[in-house]
Amino acid sequence: MKAQQTITTHGGTLTVYEHESRVTGTVMQFAAFIPPQAEKGPVPCLWYLSGLTCTWANVIEKGGILAAAAKHGIAVIAPDTSPRGDDVANDDGYDLGQGAGFYLTATQDPWAPHFKMDQYIMDELQAMVRDTLPIDPERQGITGHSMGGHGAMTLHLKHPNLYKTCSAFAPISAPSHCPWGEKAFTVYLRTDKAQWSAYDASALVTTQPSKAHILIDQGASDQFLAEQLKHDVFEAAAKDSGQAYTLKYHEGYDHSYYFVSTFMDDHVRHHAESL
Amino acid sequence: MKAQQTITTHGGTLTVYEHESRVTGTVMQFAAFIPPQAEKGPVPCLWYLSGLTCTWANVIEKGGILAAAAKHGIAVIAPDTSPRGDDVANDDGYDLGQGAGFYLTATQDPWAPHFKMDQYIMDELQAMVRDTLPIDPERQGITGHSMGGHGAMTLHLKHPNLYKTCSAFAPISAPSHCPWGEKAFTVYLRTDKAQWSAYDASALVTTQPSKAHILIDQGASDQFLAEQLKHDVFEAAAKDSGQAYTLKYHEGYDHSYYFVSTFMDDHVRHHAESL
Repeated sequence: MKAQQTITTHGGTLTVYEHESRVTGTVMQFAAFIPPQAEKGPVPCLWYLSGLTCTWANVIEKGGILAAAAKHGIAVIAPDTSPRGDDVANDDGYDLGQGAGFYLTATQDPWAPHFKMDQYIMDELQAMVRDTLPIDPERQGITGHSMGGHGAMTLHLKHPNLYKTCSAFAPISAPSHCPWGEKAFTVYLRTDKAQWSAYDASALVTTQPSKAHILIDQGASDQFLAEQLKHDVFEAAAKDSGQAYTLKYHEGYDHSYYFVSTFMDDHVRHHAESL
Repeated sequence: MKAQQTITTHGGTLTVYEHESRVTGTVMQFAAFIPPQAEKGPVPCLWYLSGLTCTWANVIEKGGILAAAAKHGIAVIAPDTSPRGDDVANDDGYDLGQGAGFYLTATQDPWAPHFKMDQYIMDELQAMVRDTLPIDPERQGITGHSMGGHGAMTLHLKHPNLYKTCSAFAPISAPSHCPWGEKAFTVYLRTDKAQWSAYDASALVTTQPSKAHILIDQGASDQFLAEQLKHDVFEAAAKDSGQAYTLKYHEGYDHSYYFVSTFMDDHVRHHAESL
């Protein structure tokens, strides 16, 4: 992997890396923020998964995550949301194809050759980060926004020993039951509902709740809340299975980074204190 | 003036306004953040002037100013950097014309009809803000970045009773003595050096130092530092005239919003504590 840009900020270092991925078969970019506390030894690490249309840049530039990470002494890794390139399948919709990887392994053509974002993040990028950055692999957590909140919750529930803490901003909580998820799953996975369940936090939490306390913040004026996010399905399943969680609704807040940045410090603290 | 967008964020309200300006003769946009403390009564107000190419959006989205303003209980007004529109003169360079108003009143054609950003901010926008927003007009400060740091220092030095506090991020400290300023002043004002001095913080501070303590932060790895910013000229003049100031250099930091956002909380606190 090669540093494209290294920037001093908030007392630490932000680096944008580029590398050839063997998993996605494409050139991938991600951003890593190493806080000043890393000068004294390995620091915990928070993975942030972005939403539809985003890259590493959205949360790094607009999320307030650098200030929070520097304050709480935690590294941040912000991957891209899909493979990209002229040779990679795409779609005219903002909610499918490039920028919309949904953190799953597609089984259907033309998506299957490149769309494997869960494997990419969990295996390949995980190994690169462990090998090269001053993070403590035993203290990692995961968070994300919208489609990335879905990614964070599913990766945590499937790999609770890797991502020990979990939170989400306005996540797609039950993708099998909303238009965004139904569209993506149908195209990437066809109609095999067993596969759908493996990427649905509300299904996963039924069969394999984690020991973590999942923190979810949600804008009450989020334009996608009723149709797409479906927290009622997740809450019912979590209550049944005994998954500990907090879901807070915030009056007036929408789905944007003006919402995410408002609650970022709370989330980073949640991870830093538990790791 | 008409609210284009109203967003709940950081416990307060961000509104983007649009209005017909009688001073610039164009439609202008600006952003106003009202912190939660305004519910209890008028709050102090910080004006933030942006740099070349920017609009209200850069500092609002990337500057970390909302978190700081909410914490310290101060309103933020972020104007645009020039008049804009198809009927407004422009230039191919990023450092002249639309996006590069330099917070002055142009005397030369084709710029003179619209480029009056100092009058627009100080008179017209000032009156609109006082009349409609819950701010205390006796407690106003001004700050800015790069070209906007030049604007903040000159507006403060000329109107110390209006903008009672002043700070700047990597300002153009002596525009009469650097390529950006020489180019803009020559085009907007011709070669009348008396007019140049009225828009040059290093000249103004010689004849009319203020009673405020001006806070300046500067990245030591700023790519524009040596050629464009010329803090040595300002420092010499300020020392001669007795202007109180602090100029801090920060190793490794560049000219970007990764630098600005790192020191934003310090600046907002500087204003909030003095107002």
